[in-house]
Amino acid sequence: MAYKKGEVIRLANYKLVISYDGTAYHGFQFQDNALTIQELLEKCLKKVYKKRIKVDPAGRTDSGVHARGQTVNYFAPEIMPPERIPLALNRILPRDIVVLGADLVPDGFNARRDALAKIYSYTIDNGFFPDVFLVNYAWHLYGPLDLEAMRQGASLLLGKHDFKAFQASGGTVLSTERTLFSFDIKKNKNIVKLIFQGDGFLYKMARNIVGTLADVGLHRKKPQEIRKILDSLDRGTAGKTAPARGLCLEKVLY
Amino acid sequence: MAYKKGEVIRLANYKLVISYDGTAYHGFQFQDNALTIQELLEKCLKKVYKKRIKVDPAGRTDSGVHARGQTVNYFAPEIMPPERIPLALNRILPRDIVVLGADLVPDGFNARRDALAKIYSYTIDNGFFPDVFLVNYAWHLYGPLDLEAMRQGASLLLGKHDFKAFQASGGTVLSTERTLFSFDIKKNKNIVKLIFQGDGFLYKMARNIVGTLADVGLHRKKPQEIRKILDSLDRGTAGKTAPARGLCLEKVLY
Repeated sequence: MAYKKGEVIRLANYKLVISYDGTAYHGFQFQDNALTIQELLEKCLKKVYKKRIKVDPAGRTDSGVHARGQTVNYFAPEIMPPERIPLALNRILPRDIVVLGADLVPDGFNARRDALAKIYSYTIDNGFFPDVFLVNYAWHLYGPLDLEAMRQGASLLLGKHDFKAFQASGGTVLSTERTLFSFDIKKNKNIVKLIFQGDGFLYKMARNIVGTLADVGLHRKKPQEIRKILDSLDRGTAGKTAPARGLCLEKVLY
Repeated sequence: MAYKKGEVIRLANYKLVISYDGTAYHGFQFQDNALTIQELLEKCLKKVYKKRIKVDPAGRTDSGVHARGQTVNYFAPEIMPPERIPLALNRILPRDIVVLGADLVPDGFNARRDALAKIYSYTIDNGFFPDVFLVNYAWHLYGPLDLEAMRQGASLLLGKHDFKAFQASGGTVLSTERTLFSFDIKKNKNIVKLIFQGDGFLYKMARNIVGTLADVGLHRKKPQEIRKILDSLDRGTAGKTAPARGLCLEKVLY
């Protein structure tokens, strides 16, 4: 199907929920010299719609970060019912990107602006030797982890705070105030899962929080130091950035 | 450390338990023109011991098959305590092969001959769209799976039988009689796990059994047909071979 010159086509607004294994990609957002998820997704949308489509994501995940529930929206002609779109895209996308759902949404909807909250998970492999099946999906961190101390530290982050101390340089937002709604830490055998929900996350904030809480778990920092770090507004006071491979954008809530 | 000419060295017998993600490998056993786990393991053992070491595995897993508990034995000089061996090897092995343990065993021990039983798992991803994190670790098979029928069919395989009908051509063993001790089928959300234990498995027998039980689950075959297939001793009567990526050698029992 080719569009005719001068043709007027009503574009509908679509919301896609996407899962991906981020291992092979340089993050979500388009880059000139590196392979990204946005580039492949837009390439496949172009094959489906025979025209260039730009997607707007709820959040730009970094290189190596995974997603079970990344959400994007895009405008395109209504050439098929929404439930056909995942099938059409999954047929041509690489195996490590899977579209899970598509919906028609009101024209005003924007995946980033309208997100009420994002749920992330972070996986720590606490076994002596790495679990070979989690090499790309967990941070292998051996050593006794005091989960109670980590939970105490995490509780100090709940609520509305200026999270500037947890923002990596390179962040360009106007306000560094964010609200963290919940933070759960569970252990099953050697696997420690951190699951947290907030209204938004600054550049590398999620991984900087995890790195800092790992210091607390390893007794390199006291849980109460979390409050001092927050108050300092200084990135230098927090722990190191936890590796990207343990992080997964689980869900975006609207 | 180099060995001197004419030196007499007592070789000890070591048992290693190894886990690997088989995705990148052409199976366990050494091949001239393809990368295998045995080749990399022996290459790393050579670096540790400064001499050629040959390993004997409990079973040769096929291309793409995984392991959490493959077991091998090899003879080598006692240059370090056994608990140091996994550390020495994991430092130089690729990330998708992890040695989990090493033990000194009696000289007469052989990983293949002395195995009393092997436990395998097979993972079926029964979701409508594939779980992106299981693309290399499960067979994506959508459709209503009648697990009760599969369990019924599997129960007919328990005990001592001639499993010739489930052996792929290329098998070269003298006897095709094997004993299946247990066969469990569990479901958790979209993931169906088949866990089975036997005294030995013929060439592709595990995957041929899974492929046939999948036919039963999809109502393409009746559970009772399993008995007829066994009795036929004819590979042509069983279902197709399930993909390698769902299979994992969980444990070898001695």
